[in-house]
Amino acid sequence: MSDNAGTSKKSSMDIASVIGLTLAVFAILGGQALEGGNVGSILQPTAALIVLGGTFGACLLQFPLSVTIASFKSIMKAFLEPKTNNGAVIQEIIRLANKARKEGVISLESDAQQITDPFLKKALTMAMDGVEPKVLRETMELEISNLEEESEEPIKFWQAAGGYSPTIGILGAVLGLIHVMENLSDPSKLGSGIAVAFVATVYGVGLANLVYLPISGKLKIKSRSHLIAKEIMLVGVISILEGENPRLIDDKLRSYLSRKEQEEQTESNTAKQRKAA
Amino acid sequence: MSDNAGTSKKSSMDIASVIGLTLAVFAILGGQALEGGNVGSILQPTAALIVLGGTFGACLLQFPLSVTIASFKSIMKAFLEPKTNNGAVIQEIIRLANKARKEGVISLESDAQQITDPFLKKALTMAMDGVEPKVLRETMELEISNLEEESEEPIKFWQAAGGYSPTIGILGAVLGLIHVMENLSDPSKLGSGIAVAFVATVYGVGLANLVYLPISGKLKIKSRSHLIAKEIMLVGVISILEGENPRLIDDKLRSYLSRKEQEEQTESNTAKQRKAA
Amino acid sequence: MSDNAGTSKKSSMDIASVIGLTLAVFAILGGQALEGGNVGSILQPTAALIVLGGTFGACLLQFPLSVTIASFKSIMKAFLEPKTNNGAVIQEIIRLANKARKEGVISLESDAQQITDPFLKKALTMAMDGVEPKVLRETMELEISNLEEESEEPIKFWQAAGGYSPTIGILGAVLGLIHVMENLSDPSKLGSGIAVAFVATVYGVGLANLVYLPISGKLKIKSRSHLIAKEIMLVGVISILEGENPRLIDDKLRSYLSRKEQEEQTESNTAKQRKAA
Amino acid sequence: MSDNAGTSKKSSMDIASVIGLTLAVFAILGGQALEGGNVGSILQPTAALIVLGGTFGACLLQFPLSVTIASFKSIMKAFLEPKTNNGAVIQEIIRLANKARKEGVISLESDAQQITDPFLKKALTMAMDGVEPKVLRETMELEISNLEEESEEPIKFWQAAGGYSPTIGILGAVLGLIHVMENLSDPSKLGSGIAVAFVATVYGVGLANLVYLPISGKLKIKSRSHLIAKEIMLVGVISILEGENPRLIDDKLRSYLSRKEQEEQTESNTAKQRKAA
Amino acid sequence: MSDNAGTSKKSSMDIASVIGLTLAVFAILGGQALEGGNVGSILQPTAALIVLGGTFGACLLQFPLSVTIASFKSIMKAFLEPKTNNGAVIQEIIRLANKARKEGVISLESDAQQITDPFLKKALTMAMDGVEPKVLRETMELEISNLEEESEEPIKFWQAAGGYSPTIGILGAVLGLIHVMENLSDPSKLGSGIAVAFVATVYGVGLANLVYLPISGKLKIKSRSHLIAKEIMLVGVISILEGENPRLIDDKLRSYLSRKEQEEQTESNTAKQRKAA
Repeated sequence: MSDNAGTSKKSSMDIASVIGLTLAVFAILGGQALEGGNVGSILQPTAALIVLGGTFGACLLQFPLSVTIASFKSIMKAFLEPKTNNGAVIQEIIRLANKARKEGVISLESDAQQITDPFLKKALTMAMDGVEPKVLRETMELEISNLEEESEEPIKFWQAAGGYSPTIGILGAVLGLIHVMENLSDPSKLGSGIAVAFVATVYGVGLANLVYLPISGKLKIKSRSHLIAKEIMLVGVISILEGENPRLIDDKLRSYLSRKEQEEQTESNTAKQRKAA
Repeated sequence: MSDNAGTSKKSSMDIASVIGLTLAVFAILGGQALEGGNVGSILQPTAALIVLGGTFGACLLQFPLSVTIASFKSIMKAFLEPKTNNGAVIQEIIRLANKARKEGVISLESDAQQITDPFLKKALTMAMDGVEPKVLRETMELEISNLEEESEEPIKFWQAAGGYSPTIGILGAVLGLIHVMENLSDPSKLGSGIAVAFVATVYGVGLANLVYLPISGKLKIKSRSHLIAKEIMLVGVISILEGENPRLIDDKLRSYLSRKEQEEQTESNTAKQRKAA
Repeated sequence: MSDNAGTSKKSSMDIASVIGLTLAVFAILGGQALEGGNVGSILQPTAALIVLGGTFGACLLQFPLSVTIASFKSIMKAFLEPKTNNGAVIQEIIRLANKARKEGVISLESDAQQITDPFLKKALTMAMDGVEPKVLRETMELEISNLEEESEEPIKFWQAAGGYSPTIGILGAVLGLIHVMENLSDPSKLGSGIAVAFVATVYGVGLANLVYLPISGKLKIKSRSHLIAKEIMLVGVISILEGENPRLIDDKLRSYLSRKEQEEQTESNTAKQRKAA
Repeated sequence: MSDNAGTSKKSSMDIASVIGLTLAVFAILGGQALEGGNVGSILQPTAALIVLGGTFGACLLQFPLSVTIASFKSIMKAFLEPKTNNGAVIQEIIRLANKARKEGVISLESDAQQITDPFLKKALTMAMDGVEPKVLRETMELEISNLEEESEEPIKFWQAAGGYSPTIGILGAVLGLIHVMENLSDPSKLGSGIAVAFVATVYGVGLANLVYLPISGKLKIKSRSHLIAKEIMLVGVISILEGENPRLIDDKLRSYLSRKEQEEQTESNTAKQRKAA
Repeated sequence: MSDNAGTSKKSSMDIASVIGLTLAVFAILGGQALEGGNVGSILQPTAALIVLGGTFGACLLQFPLSVTIASFKSIMKAFLEPKTNNGAVIQEIIRLANKARKEGVISLESDAQQITDPFLKKALTMAMDGVEPKVLRETMELEISNLEEESEEPIKFWQAAGGYSPTIGILGAVLGLIHVMENLSDPSKLGSGIAVAFVATVYGVGLANLVYLPISGKLKIKSRSHLIAKEIMLVGVISILEGENPRLIDDKLRSYLSRKEQEEQTESNTAKQRKAA
């Protein structure tokens, strides 16, 4: 446990995200099939071109290229589960605190080398370098606020996509209706023409509500949990530096966990103590 | 009274919630019947599949599984009445304050064991353990902010559901209309086809406005009252620890009650005093 | 003047509210009549049932019963004019300040009994009881924040009603259209069927924009003026307690008045002084 | 310059406002004419009655009569240009500061009489009366916050009108459509009936977006510039009272100007110095 | 490097903006062409007159003329890339700090003359003039807040345009439909009439979502990066004035960079040191 500081990104799936998207797509397509509609009739490459091209064109105009790329990468984060195990982060901090108590703060130098989380590593290395707690706190807080700002960019990107998509879907529908209206001479094609036009609305509204906006929301929740982990690391390292009692540090850090995490944490501790005994 | 600290969750119904939902459903169905419409004609399993599947698919993609489960459980809270009787909470605090005055703070140790509210129990136990008021306050305030964050999750969940539902209802209607438009050859079925398509809108708009959003609002109001109870407990325990006069504690805590609760409280006290006399 | 502290609720009408509602209703009905439409044709009990039942069902589900009742009572407040005459409040405070200067603070004991405003009475009684200014301020500020919270409840209620009403109007229209679409066999009734369906939209949009939302806005403005009166009373009583010069108190309290109120106040004072002379 | 303190309200037109409204109206009517439509066909007194009556009925119900009157008067402000020349305000303050330096603060007594701006006059008079800077600041800051609140009222009024107008336009259209639907027996009149109904939408949407909302925005911008002038006057008078160096006062006050105003100010000063030389 | 302080505005294109707008326009026109629609049929000067005239009429009514002109100029900023290279700004500050260390602060006088960035020049000149750090900070912070306010004006302008444009597009469509409805006598022209009417919606919705709103967003992101550069300059100059160690200044200023910029900065420094070696 000591080498990953509880932030090992187990690349297991985020079950809720996978079930959610599957459920939504099946409900729409299943409903379409049950009504006797041909699923193929809602596959219109032209509508897809207009809606996707318009939406991501607008997003590229609004956001820098780097943010756009980061936002597409962040989709993975919403589906894979880089779950920040904040309980494990605390256990690692406590282990370091106990060692510092027994063998002196300077004994953590070797641990600092082995830590994989860059934030914890930087904080601990600064502490080893004799940086004052006040300066350490200021520097690492700026680091946290940088991380926060960075993690907000994809959230804003997908929110913007969720805002542009339905209106561009309507734009596509109106363009389709204009085409239909200009060719009223052949009434037999009127219905299917309108049908084609409406598909753009389906794409625009569907992508916004079933993909872009929920992904933005999930990224927000994950980013928050990630930032709390950094907060725990910062408070923990400073407490170690100030020579606080490991038990008190444990009490203090645990209050950052949600009630559910606290219970898991307690169980895990009890299990550990049993093993130790 | 002493054993439940006024937070006994009487599982009586929340009358307003029950009347509200009943009234809304009857108004819609009754209106439908009065217009001579067949109530059965707005029962379309396909539309329900699209709207419910799409909405909860989007919600699952947005929220972790644990929040989704907690949100469904919270529906019960909106209909049953775990009314936090903040007046009774104060009476219990005052009882403890009086005992502490006469028999010493340490005499509350036995009371702490019998209290069922976990928050009050923890605060009192910490006080018995000799934790300093400042530390006790910090720890319990973090506890309150944890409770607050947790209780906001279902509120946000149902708000999100209330946001997705109408747009997915419109998505279902557009899908239905596409189906109708593709089969214009048989005009006799045009009307009923459109009717079926519109049912998805009814589901989406109705569920959002008559169920999801009002439930989110009711949970918000109940959560606020619940958090005030915790606030009262915290201020109360600290006041006891600092040996304040029970009468002054009573005055201070009562200012957390709404005017209506204050009146009930006064009446109840008067009744009690009469009994005592 | 001394016995009502300027808060006598003259139950004269709020002219703007009455004119406003009358103008709106006449414009709609007059327009309908001018177009040659039958006013009777927009009186549809079924549509009213759906829109009113749905809206207040949703509101009852969202708000506690007590808030619902208080909100209906508050409609009166929007139309009758319990105008808080903040100028008169100041005059009363100055009268008390002058008396306290000449005959000592304790001489206000008899005045405290006769004051009808419960807030001013409580503040003055506390002052007579020798409560310290700091404690008095804290207690009365909690009182003000309680009053504020209470007065916000009907504002939120009517805002929520203004949010639900148009969507439920649309729900009613869609239900009506479903009914029409299912009975296309008799085209002669098509038009009137659609007409009936649209009435639900008229009710939903009309009630929200011509009644619920404006009432919510008016209550907000009145509540603000009411809370300023309490603020004036609190600052006034504390200034008296601290033995400030009545002229300085007058200057300080007048800055809470709007420019228009200040002018009226000055005129009234001049008139008074002339009488006195 | 000394007698108007730079706030002389030159009643020249606000060119942007005049061009803006003219452009908007010409674009709409010109477009209508170019399409071959009769401009007369969008002049429907009934639609105007419904939309204007409904909108201002709702506004009267929401706002007190005095605010309604003030809001109509404020339209003038949006079109005429009472441009607060903040540069001139600073020059006047500096002139007073120089005089106070040479002839003593008391020498400003005669200037105070001649100043037309009521705010500057009151501040200077208080300073002459020997009021302490701290009290002067508090009093004048309350004055500024009163002015701010007052100037926000018409902004909110036109924003509310811009919110009600489109929905009431839709209400008018639905009422018109109901009328049309009830008289389907004469299909030849169907088209023109629908046309008449749609005019209400044109009025509602057009007035909101081309008049009410832009006026609200312009008033907001003008109010901000007006309040900055008062801020400059207050800081200036206090600096004079405290005997600061006129050059330092100039530097300090100029930082309240936008970059463009600063440049104009510098040019104007240079011109003045040339004249003086 | 010393003469431009890292703010040289390389007028290379902002690739994302160019790709974004191109993609959006091609998606819409390409989609239109693929559907077999004539691209010419969505070129309607009348619709353009109504939508553009109405939108910019409303904007002129809302904003002063100077803001309108500045907003049109700012479009260039969204497409050209005046990228504020904050890393280079820091390098320049560090160069000045090193010189000040070796040759005394006064030696920077000649550098101040050569700096092109007006903000850094003013700050350094004030420092040379012996202005106290506290006064320097206050003055330059007011300058930054002036710059911020100024850069927000075009952002608000394009946001307002993005708000007016779709509603005025709908206004144009309704006007077109009124025209069509009045001429139902010739059904053969019905379709193309409706088509023409719909083009106004395409313009209104398309310009708002593909041009106005994304440009507003891009300007916001660029303005933020520009203001951070000024912040870095201010903190840097004050640190130099207070004689801080250049290495510490470097550490402090780098925390204003995003993680990506920090990496580039480190690489660039390493490269430099190699050169120097």
